[in-house]
Order: sequence, then C-alpha cells, then structure tokens
Amino acid sequence: MTEIAYGDAAIGHGVTEILNGTGAPVPGTAFHEIAGGVTAPNGFSAAGIYCGIRKVKKDIALIVSEEPARCAAVFTLNAVIAAPLVVDKEILKDERTIKAIVVNSGNANACTGEQGMQDAWRMVRETAAALGVPEQQVLVSSTGVIGQYLPMENIVKGIRELPSRLSRSGGFDAAEAIMTTDTYAKEIALDIALPTNNGTPHTVRIGGIAKGSGMIAPNMATMLAFLTTDAAIAQPLLQNTFSRLIGKSFNRISVDGDMSTNDMAVILANGSSHVPELTAGTKAFAVFEEALEHVLVRLAKMIARDGEGATKLVEIVVKGARSESEAIRAAQSVANSNLVKTAIHGADANWGRILAAVGYSGIAFDPARVELFFDDLPILRPDYQIFIDEVRAKEIFSKENITITIDLHQGTEMANFWTCDLSKDYVHINASYRS
Amino acid sequence: MTEIAYGDAAIGHGVTEILNGTGAPVPGTAFHEIAGGVTAPNGFSAAGIYCGIRKVKKDIALIVSEEPARCAAVFTLNAVIAAPLVVDKEILKDERTIKAIVVNSGNANACTGEQGMQDAWRMVRETAAALGVPEQQVLVSSTGVIGQYLPMENIVKGIRELPSRLSRSGGFDAAEAIMTTDTYAKEIALDIALPTNNGTPHTVRIGGIAKGSGMIAPNMATMLAFLTTDAAIAQPLLQNTFSRLIGKSFNRISVDGDMSTNDMAVILANGSSHVPELTAGTKAFAVFEEALEHVLVRLAKMIARDGEGATKLVEIVVKGARSESEAIRAAQSVANSNLVKTAIHGADANWGRILAAVGYSGIAFDPARVELFFDDLPILRPDYQIFIDEVRAKEIFSKENITITIDLHQGTEMANFWTCDLSKDYVHINASYRS
Repeated sequence: MTEIAYGDAAIGHGVTEILNGTGAPVPGTAFHEIAGGVTAPNGFSAAGIYCGIRKVKKDIALIVSEEPARCAAVFTLNAVIAAPLVVDKEILKDERTIKAIVVNSGNANACTGEQGMQDAWRMVRETAAALGVPEQQVLVSSTGVIGQYLPMENIVKGIRELPSRLSRSGGFDAAEAIMTTDTYAKEIALDIALPTNNGTPHTVRIGGIAKGSGMIAPNMATMLAFLTTDAAIAQPLLQNTFSRLIGKSFNRISVDGDMSTNDMAVILANGSSHVPELTAGTKAFAVFEEALEHVLVRLAKMIARDGEGATKLVEIVVKGARSESEAIRAAQSVANSNLVKTAIHGADANWGRILAAVGYSGIAFDPARVELFFDDLPILRPDYQIFIDEVRAKEIFSKENITITIDLHQGTEMANFWTCDLSKDYVHINASYRS
Repeated sequence: MTEIAYGDAAIGHGVTEILNGTGAPVPGTAFHEIAGGVTAPNGFSAAGIYCGIRKVKKDIALIVSEEPARCAAVFTLNAVIAAPLVVDKEILKDERTIKAIVVNSGNANACTGEQGMQDAWRMVRETAAALGVPEQQVLVSSTGVIGQYLPMENIVKGIRELPSRLSRSGGFDAAEAIMTTDTYAKEIALDIALPTNNGTPHTVRIGGIAKGSGMIAPNMATMLAFLTTDAAIAQPLLQNTFSRLIGKSFNRISVDGDMSTNDMAVILANGSSHVPELTAGTKAFAVFEEALEHVLVRLAKMIARDGEGATKLVEIVVKGARSESEAIRAAQSVANSNLVKTAIHGADANWGRILAAVGYSGIAFDPARVELFFDDLPILRPDYQIFIDEVRAKEIFSKENITITIDLHQGTEMANFWTCDLSKDYVHINASYRS
C-alpha cells in the first residue's frame, strides 16, 4: 500500500499528484497524513463494489466497525429530505452506537414516497442480516438522481456480497463506490499524537471519505462524508464537536448554491485505539479537535476543487467584519455568484462583480472602506482607489489556487469560504445528468 | 414606420418574429400594442448614438419630454450603488418633475468613488446645458463594466451631439443604445382607451424600453427600464403604482441571481395627451394600471428570455401557497437554481431538482402534498406518485416557452416568476465580459 498524501500545495494540481504525494507531518501540528481513508483507524473495514445501479462503476459501499461505535451525524436542512435520512434519524433517535453504514450511488432514493421508505428500511435490514448485527446499528445513505425508485434486486444482491469483500484496506474502494460526478475519490487519514501527562504520546487515527460534486451549498451540499476514528469519546461530546466543525468546513463550501435532499456526514468513534476516553477541556482533546478540523476542511476543499466542471479552487476570505456570521454571509454571496465564478474561469479579474456580490449579501457595510486583494496583490484600496495591475491580476486568476481577500474594515471578525469556477463543463454535465 | 408587436406567443420565437409581428389589440383589455417605444406617447422624443465608449455599437441615449413630466423611480437595493443612482436620488429628493434622461452603456460608473460622482454630475450638467433645461430636471444612468472611470471626453461629445438627433421616432435608437450583452433591443408601447362617463373613451399611451441581460435578479437586476406616458397623474400615485407593479414584473425575473449596482427603472408622465388627470379608485385608473402592468411584465419577460446565453423562457408558477411572499420565495429559489436551469437547457426533465430547490427555499411545506406540472402535463401527484411521461416531458422541455407549475396545496396564494435556461454561452459571455 503506497502512502497517500494530500498536502495543501497538492490540491488543485491534478489527480495524479494528489494521489501520489508522500505522507508527511502537517507542519506545526501533532499529526501527519497517512494512507487508508476510513480504514486507517483500528477496528474498521470497508468495501466498495459494483451491483448494477450505475452503468459501469462501483456503486455500493459498506463501512464496518468491529466494535459498536459512538455515532454523531449531521443531515441536510432541505425541507425535502430523502428516505434514507428519515430512516437514519429514526435509528439515531434511540441508538447512538453504530456498527455499519451502507451507501449506494446512482440513485438518491429521494422524492420516492412510501416505496422509498420501504426500500431504505430494507437496505438496513438486509445489511444487518448479511453482517449478523442488530438492525438498530446500521445506517443507510444514498446519492444520485432524485425521483426514481431504487433497483432493489441489484442492491440486495450487492448487500449480500459486500461482507465477503470487507477488508482493512477497503477504504479507497468505498470512496470510489460513493462517487457520482466526482472526478476522483476523496479520502484522507491522520495519525495523531495525543499529549499525555507522562510525556509519551498516545496514538489515535481519524479517517474520512467524501463525495461531491453538484448541488453543493452550505447546510450542507449533495455531499456525503463518512468519518472514522479509533479514539474513544462520549457521544454528546462527539456530536457537539462534529457539528461545530462542520460549520467551519462542509458548510463553508459552494459549487452551485443548490442544497441537496441527501446530504449527510457521519462519524463513528469505536475506541479501538485503546487510548483512554477523550474528555472536553484536556490538551489531548484540543489536539483531536484540531485534527478533526483538518480532516473536515481537507475533504471540504477537495469537494470544492472537484465541483462539477471546476478547474480552480477559490478561497474567499472576508476580514474586518462586525461578526463571523456577517463574514460568512458576505463570503458565501461571492462564492455563489455566477458572474464572479465565470470571470474566474475566464481569468478575467472583473473585481467589480465581487464588490457587487458583497453588496447584495444583505450585510450592512460601507463600500468606500473596502479593500480587495487577489492573493497578496492589492486590487482596491479604501475610497475606491483602484490599484489593479491587470497583468499580475490575470496571472493570479490563471492559477489553479486563488485566494480572494475582502477586508470590510468594519470590525475584527473573519471567515473563510471555498468555491470553484463555473465552466461550460458544469453546464454540459448538468444538462444531461440523467442520460 | 412599421407596426411592432410583441404578442405573448411571439416571445421566444426569435428576434425576427418578435420584431415583425403586427400590432393588435391585447385580448380582453382596452389597449393594443403599437410601435414607437418611449416615443409613442405624445410629447416625447429620443435619440441613441455612438460616442466611443463601446467598440462599435450605439452607446449613449437621450429621452426628452417637451413638458416637465412627473417622475417615479425605483433603484437597486445593492449596498454598493453606482454614482449615477446616487445623483438621481439626490435630484429626486427635491424635484419630481423631469425633462430628460441621459443613459450610457459600456461603463457602469460603479465603484468609481469621488471621480465617479463628479463624472455623473457632469453628465447631468452637460445634458442640461445642451438642452437648455434646468439641471434639476435631468436624470443620468449608466450600465456596463464596473470599476472603470467613464471616458468623459467621448461622453461629453456625445451629449452635445444628442439634442440635434432627437426625434419623435427615436425610441428604437435609444433602446439600441442602452443594450449591453442584450441580443435585441427591447421596447413596447400601448394605445389605451380609458373609459369615461360619457361613453367616449380617452386615449393615452405608455411606452417603454429596457435592457438586461446578466446580473439579473429580483430587487432588481442589471436592468435599466425607462417608461413614458402622456397620461397626467400625480407623482405620489405614480410612484406608488410603479413600485407595486415592479414587484410583479422586474422583481419576478432572474437570469443569474446576481443583483446589480446600477439597476433602475424610471417612468415619466407628461400629461401631453391632454386627458384629465387620473385619480385613484376610478375605472380609468384601473385600466391604466392594467396597461402599465402589461408593459412592465412584457419588458420583464423580454429580459428573462434574452438572459445571457439563454435559449428558453421559463415561467415558474407556484400555487397553493400560504402567502404570496412564500409563493415568490419558492418560485425564486427554483428560478435561481443552476441545476434546474441546466436541466432545462438540456431538455432533461429532472424534476427532482425542482422539488429540491423548493425544499431549500426556506418556506415551510409538506413535500408529500406537492403536485408538479410541465405545461399541462402532470409530473408528480400528491404522495410522491410519479406520473412522468418522459417522452412528452422531454418534448415540453425542448420548447422555447416552458411553464413549470408547482402546487404546494398549503393555501390559496400564488406567484409567477420568469427565468431562462443556463447554457454554455452564459459561461462563454461572462468568462470574458471585459475583453
């Protein structure tokens, strides 16, 4: 098994480089990236196979924890919610330890009414039976086209085959099987050295896989993310931390502003590292939180970079805001602007569109105080002093990683947001998604 | 001068057919469409010429009323507001009778600071001097790229030439001169028979020109609209009626969801019909209102149909809502969805995206009660009964005029909204707008 790394510098440099990087420490932290995705932590296995939902590719995945794992989850805020999410919420109402997650791509099982509910429950029952675990310890997830019934015969066949294909190195197969229009599988894992009182660090791991790549908007996106850790952590603390960090990662990305019916992110913590349970307020927990944020932000950026038709990853930084929520609102407005995104695609440094998008974000600010930077190049200074060097601005907009910084000079709060450019390929992909 | 008609059936049937229709009564009303645009009403003249802002096309327009006209206006809600709008608001604070409007395309004079303000005031002064009218009776408007200073030498030359080019048939030249990426000039005029007590109707006229076609979103859009009427009407009543009807027309269209810094709509009422002043609550005023709504909706639909890269006009009808504002919110969410708009472009009847967009609109509703129609073809019945006839649905989505009806079955309110498809040409146009 080769080491897989996703150094920040690698994002946007093409699939090969991303997949072939070398695992390395993350500077300034107590963790480093390792291979294995969701199967990197102890006590997890996974598989991804083809069962006949999609035309050619792997379309069903299974993630299994040997021991019952504490589970935290976040679901879409869309009022139209897909059947599997209704089922999962029902399961998690009573039971917050989970042993398995079954996921299909190619069909969202959304807007499918009573039949869809029966199908989602059947996926849970069949998976529980195939693994010999209680039904209450299985979650189900679906992604793909909306408004079509699942091909249950193929899915049941797939579910029955999956247990025999489970392996400790199956994380990447699972990452591939959950892809829809994603152009590459998204996974990451960290090896984390938790500080202890005796000076000998404890080692735990976090792994994750995710898929994008259309219908990506905050709260959350057509995105699925499944995370695993062999740390031990109480469910309420896990849920609290997970929810908060999703607010800084998956809820800070946008591909097209469309929020999906199927978004979910789940984390399983099975304690198989045999490291003492993490508790709030400790140094060890602070390191774990930082590592989890790293994993979530990295997956979020991979999703933004791999937005349908995208050729660039764009980070929007809003500084000098009166509150973090206003900074987020302004950044999101820029990130969702079709006019900004097409200008970036064409490497046209049409900065007026950025200011216009902040202008209609709904926050109160004085446009005459705004400063604008592309990477570290000043574009606009206060009082509308236009500083733009068109040649250098075009150079920056021609890169695959672009940072747009907007300083409102209204306060001290800030927020980051990630998006991609809008290309003709986005239109091409989405004009014929179902064909 | 040939008769120009814009029968509803003609919208979307290509420019030639739209421009070559024959003027005809609007069925069920007391008005019919006539040629002439803003110069159809008595006492108005206009001109549109090339002054050197754009590369080749006409880029500056002038609309003049012989008599001082009562003026009502609506401006963008964007916090970043272009200099000419600041100037106009200042002028309209004291003076609500206007004799002239000068408009340039090719440069928005937005985000241009103090220099931009000076330039906008200079356009007012030069126009007033060239026409020999008071400065307080001139409005100014600009549209085009943001963040560049106006080429004032060319503009002043243009302003000085314009008065000699004014004519009673210059409406179409003005309509052409305000175009940016519009593919055809947008104008309409009505001849209106107002009922009287003695049974002999009084005749008044309303004319209008408008431009789109990117940055189109409610409240308002990168859109300019200039309307004229020879009816007499008090300013407060005119403003009230105009604002309300813009809520049902220009604020019900969306091309890309981007709100511009320069949007404005202005109406001038000069009383040159010599018909007695219209007053609220009369039958005559009700007919005038209906005619004004017709003009505004027709211009709004022309803008939506001519959205950048658009190939189709799509009407979203939300029925059965608890309130009109919820109906608007749901319709707007669908109209702004890139996923819905690309599916329509590709004639892919991917109806799940429509339901998903209603789902994230923020209104409370029960998805299981929703009915969905494409034109009159049922797609979805309550309880997620999927009725779709894919062949007929594809036929409908292949047309140039499509109506999507969403019945929420939550109440009795409804709203219409107009949008267009999202094509590769939208990306092409906006990736290189400034080149």
